[in-house]
Amino acid sequence: MKQIYLDYAASTPVDSDVVKAMIPYFSETYGNPSSTHKHGRTAREAVEHARKQVSSCFNVDPKTILFTSGGTEADNLALKGILFQHLPKDLGKGPHIITSEIEHPAVLQTCKQLEAYGYSIAYLPVDNTGLVDLDLLEETIVEDTKLISIMYANNEIGTIEPVEKIGKIAHKHNVLFHTDAVQAVGKVPIDLSKLPIDLLSLSSHKIYGPKGVGALYHTKEITFDPLLQGGGHEWGKRSGTLNTPGIVGLGKACELSKQRLSNDINHLQKMRDYFIEKLNEIESSTLNGHPTKRLVNNIHFRFEGIEGNALHSMLDEKGISIATGSACSSEKIHASHVLLALGLSPEEAISSIRFTIGRNTKKEEIDYVLPIVKESINHLRSISPLWEQNE
Amino acid sequence: MKQIYLDYAASTPVDSDVVKAMIPYFSETYGNPSSTHKHGRTAREAVEHARKQVSSCFNVDPKTILFTSGGTEADNLALKGILFQHLPKDLGKGPHIITSEIEHPAVLQTCKQLEAYGYSIAYLPVDNTGLVDLDLLEETIVEDTKLISIMYANNEIGTIEPVEKIGKIAHKHNVLFHTDAVQAVGKVPIDLSKLPIDLLSLSSHKIYGPKGVGALYHTKEITFDPLLQGGGHEWGKRSGTLNTPGIVGLGKACELSKQRLSNDINHLQKMRDYFIEKLNEIESSTLNGHPTKRLVNNIHFRFEGIEGNALHSMLDEKGISIATGSACSSEKIHASHVLLALGLSPEEAISSIRFTIGRNTKKEEIDYVLPIVKESINHLRSISPLWEQNE
Repeated sequence: MKQIYLDYAASTPVDSDVVKAMIPYFSETYGNPSSTHKHGRTAREAVEHARKQVSSCFNVDPKTILFTSGGTEADNLALKGILFQHLPKDLGKGPHIITSEIEHPAVLQTCKQLEAYGYSIAYLPVDNTGLVDLDLLEETIVEDTKLISIMYANNEIGTIEPVEKIGKIAHKHNVLFHTDAVQAVGKVPIDLSKLPIDLLSLSSHKIYGPKGVGALYHTKEITFDPLLQGGGHEWGKRSGTLNTPGIVGLGKACELSKQRLSNDINHLQKMRDYFIEKLNEIESSTLNGHPTKRLVNNIHFRFEGIEGNALHSMLDEKGISIATGSACSSEKIHASHVLLALGLSPEEAISSIRFTIGRNTKKEEIDYVLPIVKESINHLRSISPLWEQNE
Repeated sequence: MKQIYLDYAASTPVDSDVVKAMIPYFSETYGNPSSTHKHGRTAREAVEHARKQVSSCFNVDPKTILFTSGGTEADNLALKGILFQHLPKDLGKGPHIITSEIEHPAVLQTCKQLEAYGYSIAYLPVDNTGLVDLDLLEETIVEDTKLISIMYANNEIGTIEPVEKIGKIAHKHNVLFHTDAVQAVGKVPIDLSKLPIDLLSLSSHKIYGPKGVGALYHTKEITFDPLLQGGGHEWGKRSGTLNTPGIVGLGKACELSKQRLSNDINHLQKMRDYFIEKLNEIESSTLNGHPTKRLVNNIHFRFEGIEGNALHSMLDEKGISIATGSACSSEKIHASHVLLALGLSPEEAISSIRFTIGRNTKKEEIDYVLPIVKESINHLRSISPLWEQNE
């Protein structure tokens, strides 16, 4: 049996229809979309068609979609693009951002960097399911708050934040609201014409599109200090030659995502619930995150007495690709900032792993994986001093 | 006859071998190169192989190559990444950069932005062939100069700057030297192990690779303040999921570029010289830029009494894609900042056009194009009040 992939939150295979849509834009329609001759115009038409496919996926005007190199750039552009317009005068007393403790590093590390530049950042705690506290959010807003950035759904534990309520609070206080929706797109219906969201980041390679491309949705009146300066592409908000095949791929992936959304949600939810039910049968196992306000493809568990990294390696050797709940470097094991923010102890945090399923995941795969997971946990517990103490 | 493409400096078709190399990384080897499971490791191997192909093209260590979303990002990262480490204290009295008046907008507009943030920038003038003055460069260095950024070769007129001498001057004064080599790569042999260059930007889609990917060469000891913060990819210098197929494409394009360099140079030089010789036969025509220190694929002319934009449109209608020497927006015609920096009058500047040839350009295409160019110029002059005044 070939290696089974249960890490769709890390990346997805590009849909064959998406690849097919991209191919002509490598060697046939290769003009620079900013050139005004025929070679350029034909490429530009493809870019603008893709922009419509993306915007239509969110029920908004194409002009609100700005193409980037991916979710990380979209997040950085949203935060720095807004904040660099207000340079801090005194270190630590600068303009203010509110974010959460469980954001993706693309938001969290950007906030740390902005802090070093003199901005002031409030990191909201979350409850033990990963939800932000709306009262606390409102209390945290100050006169100088320029932006609230709270993710749509968490990339590790899959908890879906109350973005509509967050947006309403932001707007009540005339504060812009950005959300990193990299994990939510394609798994949650998102109608941006009805949601109080000013900026939204998305990534192509999480929705069966190619890597190296993403987008930042932004309401039209929003101005940025560009992160990438140059030829003035994307209304001067993001310079750099438009990546025609990548953008065409993202467009097609969005179109497919829209068409398949309810089927995808039904399928994923069934698979997820089955997987969770079976993993719950394992002794001393606990689902991390929210039981219901949860992405349809996320199964995040901790198993007492084991190390997530050890289980990850063991499953990998047995032909199963999953993710650890903790970010690990070659040097040492760090407990995930997300799990610690939920109130888990470092020991609980490092005993966690993440399975994320995809459009192509079959019940047979889960049934194949389950006994291997159980055996591996039993084996790891049998050699674990932590587990012996428990018995 | 199909539309003839003479705008290779704007973008190139992706080589079929490059597309072939990329294809498996869309839907087969789709793991995230930062994942540690088998799906991730296989993707990572492809990325690191590509890094070797790129570094080998410049005879340097793979660790000096940092992947970006393109040349514009590489330029922005070099300039902002270095300068943001030294935040300005007083507006206009901040750390200092030296650049030239004829840089690509990715450098020039970044410098304008840095100026607005409080940095201080010296824009060096050039002579009437586009060369910077080395004595003036040395005189311009001050104690607070952190970076010199001068392009390897100009994108409009093709003039090749004396980068080796510039680098020596920079290093004599302990200043870092960055060069935008987006137009030079693949047309000039560049051995970075022998050149006093600290940072070099390159773009994939100018060398028959895909759009949406580029690289920043940097000597290993150089630190950056990342432009894109996040998961800590590329040694923490550039976060964002690695674009496996794009990077594989850039790697293959570099490999092919290295293999074909001397053939490409021979072919392009012959074609260019023939094209220039023939265009020189046109009455009141003048080659812009340097007669010999010039990219092998660049043919940049002004034709008295015509508007470059009109000639561009006319040739486009007749099936020939070229570029105007002037950047034009839908609102009004701007004379190119490069041509004005050479000392051309606005009238001379807007009477210019650029032909750039490529690896696939054939003599028959030039022979097909030449009479059409001549006829078009005659026609435009016959209806031009400017030309009547001359007669």
